[in-house]
Amino acid sequence: MKTHYLNYVAGLSLIFLMASCGNQGSETSQVLGGSAAEQAYVAPGEYDEFYAFMSGGYSGQITAYGLPSGRLLKEIPVFSKYPENGYGYSEETKAMFNTSYGEVPWDDSHHIELSQTDGEFDGRWLFVNGNNTPRIARVDLKTFETVEILEIPDVAGLHCAPFITENSEYLVSGTRFSVPIPQKDVPIDTYKKNFKGLINYVSVDPEHGHMELAFQIEMPGFNYDLARNGKGKSHGWSFLTTYNSEQEHSLLEVNASQKDKDLMAVINWKKAEQYMKEGKFTERETSYFHNLMNEETSIAESEEKTLTKILDPKECPDMVYFIPVPKSPHGCDVDPTGEYIVGNGKLSADMSVYSFDKIMKAIEEKNFDGEFDGIPIISYEAALDGIVKKPGLGPLHTEFDGRGNAYTTFFISSEVVKWDVASKEILDRQSTFYSPGHLVIPGGETKKPDGKYLVAMNKITKDRYLPTGPELAHSAQLFDISGDKMKLILDFPTKGEPHYAQAIAADKIQPNSVKFYDIENNKHPYATLGESKTRVERDGDEVHVYMTAIRSHLAPDNIEGFKVGDKVYFHLTNLEQDWDVPHGFAIQGATNAELLVMPGQTRTLLWEPKRPGVFAFYCTDFCSALHQEMSGYARVSPKGSNVPLKWGLNEKLRENEQAAHDFYEKAKQNANIGK
Amino acid sequence: MKTHYLNYVAGLSLIFLMASCGNQGSETSQVLGGSAAEQAYVAPGEYDEFYAFMSGGYSGQITAYGLPSGRLLKEIPVFSKYPENGYGYSEETKAMFNTSYGEVPWDDSHHIELSQTDGEFDGRWLFVNGNNTPRIARVDLKTFETVEILEIPDVAGLHCAPFITENSEYLVSGTRFSVPIPQKDVPIDTYKKNFKGLINYVSVDPEHGHMELAFQIEMPGFNYDLARNGKGKSHGWSFLTTYNSEQEHSLLEVNASQKDKDLMAVINWKKAEQYMKEGKFTERETSYFHNLMNEETSIAESEEKTLTKILDPKECPDMVYFIPVPKSPHGCDVDPTGEYIVGNGKLSADMSVYSFDKIMKAIEEKNFDGEFDGIPIISYEAALDGIVKKPGLGPLHTEFDGRGNAYTTFFISSEVVKWDVASKEILDRQSTFYSPGHLVIPGGETKKPDGKYLVAMNKITKDRYLPTGPELAHSAQLFDISGDKMKLILDFPTKGEPHYAQAIAADKIQPNSVKFYDIENNKHPYATLGESKTRVERDGDEVHVYMTAIRSHLAPDNIEGFKVGDKVYFHLTNLEQDWDVPHGFAIQGATNAELLVMPGQTRTLLWEPKRPGVFAFYCTDFCSALHQEMSGYARVSPKGSNVPLKWGLNEKLRENEQAAHDFYEKAKQNANIGK
Repeated sequence: MKTHYLNYVAGLSLIFLMASCGNQGSETSQVLGGSAAEQAYVAPGEYDEFYAFMSGGYSGQITAYGLPSGRLLKEIPVFSKYPENGYGYSEETKAMFNTSYGEVPWDDSHHIELSQTDGEFDGRWLFVNGNNTPRIARVDLKTFETVEILEIPDVAGLHCAPFITENSEYLVSGTRFSVPIPQKDVPIDTYKKNFKGLINYVSVDPEHGHMELAFQIEMPGFNYDLARNGKGKSHGWSFLTTYNSEQEHSLLEVNASQKDKDLMAVINWKKAEQYMKEGKFTERETSYFHNLMNEETSIAESEEKTLTKILDPKECPDMVYFIPVPKSPHGCDVDPTGEYIVGNGKLSADMSVYSFDKIMKAIEEKNFDGEFDGIPIISYEAALDGIVKKPGLGPLHTEFDGRGNAYTTFFISSEVVKWDVASKEILDRQSTFYSPGHLVIPGGETKKPDGKYLVAMNKITKDRYLPTGPELAHSAQLFDISGDKMKLILDFPTKGEPHYAQAIAADKIQPNSVKFYDIENNKHPYATLGESKTRVERDGDEVHVYMTAIRSHLAPDNIEGFKVGDKVYFHLTNLEQDWDVPHGFAIQGATNAELLVMPGQTRTLLWEPKRPGVFAFYCTDFCSALHQEMSGYARVSPKGSNVPLKWGLNEKLRENEQAAHDFYEKAKQNANIGK
Repeated sequence: MKTHYLNYVAGLSLIFLMASCGNQGSETSQVLGGSAAEQAYVAPGEYDEFYAFMSGGYSGQITAYGLPSGRLLKEIPVFSKYPENGYGYSEETKAMFNTSYGEVPWDDSHHIELSQTDGEFDGRWLFVNGNNTPRIARVDLKTFETVEILEIPDVAGLHCAPFITENSEYLVSGTRFSVPIPQKDVPIDTYKKNFKGLINYVSVDPEHGHMELAFQIEMPGFNYDLARNGKGKSHGWSFLTTYNSEQEHSLLEVNASQKDKDLMAVINWKKAEQYMKEGKFTERETSYFHNLMNEETSIAESEEKTLTKILDPKECPDMVYFIPVPKSPHGCDVDPTGEYIVGNGKLSADMSVYSFDKIMKAIEEKNFDGEFDGIPIISYEAALDGIVKKPGLGPLHTEFDGRGNAYTTFFISSEVVKWDVASKEILDRQSTFYSPGHLVIPGGETKKPDGKYLVAMNKITKDRYLPTGPELAHSAQLFDISGDKMKLILDFPTKGEPHYAQAIAADKIQPNSVKFYDIENNKHPYATLGESKTRVERDGDEVHVYMTAIRSHLAPDNIEGFKVGDKVYFHLTNLEQDWDVPHGFAIQGATNAELLVMPGQTRTLLWEPKRPGVFAFYCTDFCSALHQEMSGYARVSPKGSNVPLKWGLNEKLRENEQAAHDFYEKAKQNANIGK
């Protein structure tokens, strides 16, 4: 029986892949030659026009690309430990990984949301969800560093997140998998009875960006997949697609694909705010962690929270509605005017476009087709604005160009389709290689899209680049959408698995970018503000090394008196006050990553010496012509030895002043050679 | 006094940076316009011409870029744990991180060496050094996976590694920092008396590539920095630059910069082999780890080794010599003919080029200027072929184009200089932005360079790209060197800190690239070769889940009977046998990374459930149109509960066969839409 069934699945997959690898030749031929090359080219010394922030998917991070060049400007570590710069390994950053399950070193980041003011990107912060162990992170776009991670309790697979409202009031975040609430040990086949979903409203402090779980709305046990919030006239409302309205718990590829229509949740969050004010919530004990980088000390701090506030739609009329959406919807997108909501049933041949006005009218007239768990189901016909007929196979996501056009990705037929939002007429289609998931247009989900480029993020790569063994990079494709027809300009490989991305004009971020940390403002308790203050202090088995780095030496660079069994904390302060002069620190045999310390910053590495001897440490970033000389030695004595703590930098300094001076003079002469 | 001294250093640094940020405008202007754009452009669907493998520096990894596009094709995890695909987190890969210090999750990778046959790249393997906790890794270029890591004992900072001989006989690997040998607890200021250096010869098995520490040569306590081996007539010889022949141990930037000349080591390793055969070595007890991926089971295995064989130059005449090299040399490079050896004193205004023939003659005639620790010092004048006069400031590294030209990077004056190897005449200079370290020409260190492109790897980035806060990507610059003058084509940011790189023609790797693992050859002890064999077995507190993945479900996808305190091992076998269809696995709250499992492969994730409830798991790679449905539930009961182990996939399969069938038929219809 199983094998019999498997044939179906195998057959299916085959079709998906066949469909997704179609007519490559005809498409690529159109983009050969100079003009596409020049469109994608950013000459040495020139800048890209846009930042594109892509979620890392199973990397757990975020990548920042330049558009149109497709160059990877930076990988920003968020949910996953990052040996490259010590994020998650340094004492200052470990707390970012705390959860109610303990320290979790990884997650699956899906949806990028840039902070908005009046429905436009303001370039202040970037939010992204952790899918597996539900969390939301905030990146500060002045520093490109993760500064906050908030766990979301009593949900599972926070896929439907963190969708932002037009003034960054809330990050709307729905559970992907329903679970018993609160968690309890029940048979899985009691799903329909015991499993529920929560839609979480996370508030964002307008001044500092700090996140707080404002309230949760308890919903039927569906899978909440994707969401958008209203804008303009629909501001104050949220729209969330769901699948598995069948409420099945096994083999969902078949069992959750039975109904011809699933349901889109429509939430009036202004109403919810009112109910919160009126105290219509119940409090529930739970546990979740809030991790915040202290801006003064630059040390992450964790707080366990133990209460959440829940709203029940049954007790809160006119707060939540459903609308039927054909079949197993995935994407849910709102156009720049706030009037049109696109619900894409990934197994439906057509696409349904809903009208906000009609939804409001239907609610007003109570034009309902029954209810689900006491939540009214708005009549499909009443809410529907129109249908895009047979646009392609496997519609997923839609973005907008601000000129009245929508662009939708089709996973199975491997294409991007351009259509007219008002008329629902199909205007253009271009193949993608292969099987696109999300797409992004700069500002394409805001009130004011910049409809110049479109990036399709493809799920299947196969033969698009030189092979790299079984594991291939995922692939992005850049289209010029400034004309009537989309034009493929560039293929570029990506890092991890980008799901959603958002792109923003460079001038909204570039002017505010921090070049280094002002050492005057360094309030780290173990900072060493000047080489004269360097020292080593023992407190039982704990040894604290107050160390500084400046081109081209670490101070102190000779240390004796460490003992086997000590916990040695190297607190390294980078004394530089210039752009792009990080210093690194590593010591042989540390069961730890390196430290990469930015100018003006202090970072701490824990070293537990395991055997006696003399061990080397050095700067890991090639910082200057004499970087290779930027090293030192740590002497480790046996446990219980009486070798005293001693440290120093060049006891023979005096007699070397002449050497330093000659060297300096020579460098001055030589500096002219390069001119 | 200290502050007084510091002014010198600060002043110095200032000069370095000033010098390194010179005349940008004039240089970029020359490369604007279409032709450079078209040279760097690789149209969608077309392939790059070369793979460039760059060391990740403080990322500990390797990155594979395409040239000329500068696109990042893949980051290959090597020395650092990699949550992105579970490397270092899965049970199969953990052992790769074992060292004599315990599990080390990070290192600092510097020098890429591709395997060679007859002095040319053969495209089989790639070797790279771990600088901090001395190790050498091997990557299999059929799969782009790290398959072997060998620790090197009794050295510190394995910077001078792993330089390969022309038939991959050895990886020559010298210590960067000298230490007491064997390690002991001695005062650091006994450096001159107690600290020694080791040069390690690691043999490579010609069939399987397996590494073995063949022998170590005990050397004076210098810092061994970089090396090259002879080729052609000089095959059988190694050349290694050293600094700190002053044998200082503190403030090296000054104290190791005093002597006007340091020493280059010249080693006759054929002679060393002969001494080994004659048993002229001493054995020393030590400890180091050899970690090897078992190709049959695909599980990494560790072995601790406890003996090394040491050759002492005093006991082995005619094996080791020194040659004086002006001041604090860094790069050491041998031209394609094997005749010319370039020793770059990074603080010297000129560059010394040595002649292999003259070195042989000097040895024959015993034309020595004394000795150091019993090692003869060959007369500088006798070994010198000629001097490149005032080429620039801060010469670092040299590669060759196979047309008689050499290309050298200058860190301080920020430029690449082209010069004629025979005449030492300077032919061209181009600015780089900013401060280049290594450079790479495809095959540029082999007998047969492909002198079409040159990539400069710059250490300072500053304003070259859109800013990303204080932490910036390092930067590479691609030059066309096919003409008389070098032409800057492209700037591209890089990952980590690339030190050295090697580039190889795509056709030497592409045809052999493995697309997926043949499941017939899967000998993993916990593999599940077919859905019918899926099961769950308890052994005390250990639970083993034999799980399979195929589009679009995990089997089993409902599991009950886990208990708090269990050690649950999910052994996931990917049943796909198609290219680019990995499946992932993650479960909520695991204090672990994901698994990313290639087709035909088995990978294992350890999960220790911490509280009762029902927890979701899912596929982390968007594998198909119904990926979102590829999920399941694990029920966890309290410790000591008597809930029995139960598992399944869709008990209601029968009644759903009709649904599956209808779904399949519909998909077939729809598949035509995309055509």
